[in-house]
Amino acid sequence: MLGEDTDGLLAGAVRAGGGRLGAAGEAEAVVWAGGPVDELAQALRSADGVRWVQLPLAGVEPYADLIGQHTELTWTCAKGIYADSVAEHALALTLALRRGLGEHARAAAWTTGVQVVPLLGSGEVVALLGGGGIAERLAELLAPFGLHVRVVRRSQAPFPAPHDEAFTPDRLAEALRGATLLVVVLPDTPQTRGMVGAAELALLAPGAVVVNIGRGPSIDTDALVAALESGHLRGAGLDVTEPEPLPDGHPLYGMPNVIVTAHTSNPTPWRRAQLARLVEDNVRRWAAGGPLRAQVDPSAGY
Amino acid sequence: MLGEDTDGLLAGAVRAGGGRLGAAGEAEAVVWAGGPVDELAQALRSADGVRWVQLPLAGVEPYADLIGQHTELTWTCAKGIYADSVAEHALALTLALRRGLGEHARAAAWTTGVQVVPLLGSGEVVALLGGGGIAERLAELLAPFGLHVRVVRRSQAPFPAPHDEAFTPDRLAEALRGATLLVVVLPDTPQTRGMVGAAELALLAPGAVVVNIGRGPSIDTDALVAALESGHLRGAGLDVTEPEPLPDGHPLYGMPNVIVTAHTSNPTPWRRAQLARLVEDNVRRWAAGGPLRAQVDPSAGY
Repeated sequence: MLGEDTDGLLAGAVRAGGGRLGAAGEAEAVVWAGGPVDELAQALRSADGVRWVQLPLAGVEPYADLIGQHTELTWTCAKGIYADSVAEHALALTLALRRGLGEHARAAAWTTGVQVVPLLGSGEVVALLGGGGIAERLAELLAPFGLHVRVVRRSQAPFPAPHDEAFTPDRLAEALRGATLLVVVLPDTPQTRGMVGAAELALLAPGAVVVNIGRGPSIDTDALVAALESGHLRGAGLDVTEPEPLPDGHPLYGMPNVIVTAHTSNPTPWRRAQLARLVEDNVRRWAAGGPLRAQVDPSAGY
Repeated sequence: MLGEDTDGLLAGAVRAGGGRLGAAGEAEAVVWAGGPVDELAQALRSADGVRWVQLPLAGVEPYADLIGQHTELTWTCAKGIYADSVAEHALALTLALRRGLGEHARAAAWTTGVQVVPLLGSGEVVALLGGGGIAERLAELLAPFGLHVRVVRRSQAPFPAPHDEAFTPDRLAEALRGATLLVVVLPDTPQTRGMVGAAELALLAPGAVVVNIGRGPSIDTDALVAALESGHLRGAGLDVTEPEPLPDGHPLYGMPNVIVTAHTSNPTPWRRAQLARLVEDNVRRWAAGGPLRAQVDPSAGY
């Protein structure tokens, strides 16, 4: 147990999972609660017995170098455990944009003429870009809406949630063509940076809505602004941006049908509770010699 | 075919259903496209052969007197056909309020500290007040969220959508107690007016969210404002209000976690298309002697 676990939540989770807390030098595993990466790096250099490191976040970008230097270790992160909340955020943004809730909230007066476009029963095409746990959960939430769901994912493993078509990333254009809703749920890797640019946005149906709940750099911000300004896109919902935070006065803030939330799809108290559950479960699995959840694939970068 | 069917959409629907358009005097049915109620009343007085009247709206309040004067006729309205869009609006408002989307839209800047409370997986208690088609559809949309859904309805008929408990209106207090979400989907009748007042709101869990997508008078507006001001309620989403439209400067407009939409849960173009479908179907049913959809119960008032 190392790092900033000031209230002892994660230490408690280690004990609840049957683990014993001790100094790094005698530990076989490190649960890193967060803090300066250098501190974790130093601990690992002096802790010969450590074979597993649990990281506290879903995104492992800050730890990429360290993971590369210690590929002999098993690394786990928090990916997947936030799927419920993030998928719900994507649905919240989607429905809010289709129903002009941002425009109504800003107006603060009885306002007729705001466009409302029902999604349910429309049979429209939705493209989910990214095929991890969040996309799976979102597909489940969208199931009652009767849409045509296309999933774009790297993995060849079966996508277990309800969907209509699966695409590999080389068929991205095919998946985006004619979609009225694009939800981006990608990790930040060299392959995903800028994956959605002007050409990709142009493939969407006129009046489409774009939602990003993964990582900001996956979408070219200037191309997004241009597609909104031209009227090609009806709106955008962004929980992540590039740059992040989006600076004051950015054109996206001034657009009536854009909602920017401040990377809040995983609220902190909820997130910590979920992390504690994962740590407890992984400590139990480690003791039993079973496979750990949320293992990082160092070659993929997430 | 009478009333304001300026673009011939409903006349086309009558023909598509196999009906023939003629003067009121020789008709066996009237499809009323909307307009001054007096015109419909006059037509009915002079049209002895008419046995069925199709009204264009879900709410029949404007026609209540006329229906009372002509209980010998079969009256149908547009109830039920808007369920998809209205249920979706309720979900949109609910998720927006749980995730502070109105606050983010108003801020138009990178804003941390807005409270987000995930609904999915929380196991919380939802009270649906009103058991018609909209409540059924909403229960279906909420099914993947893993909530405890309580339905309060007058009818003893089985509620077919996924839910956990059904209550008759005399057990309203029991149904509301501890709920974190109250969605009101009631018609406007003498029984429903003011059904949710200060005492009912006090039964909800602290931090609860209230959504009204039925009719404004079901909720006591002053009591709602007080419950929001005291902090007992976390937020409210209102597509209908009392009075309606809500006047400029009303305290509800100034509250950060209140979203007021302008009775837009059924957008006009979508609603007309749905109505045309219903008319076509009902004309076909009438010719076949089958039961009509959306029949008004004059004694219930909807």
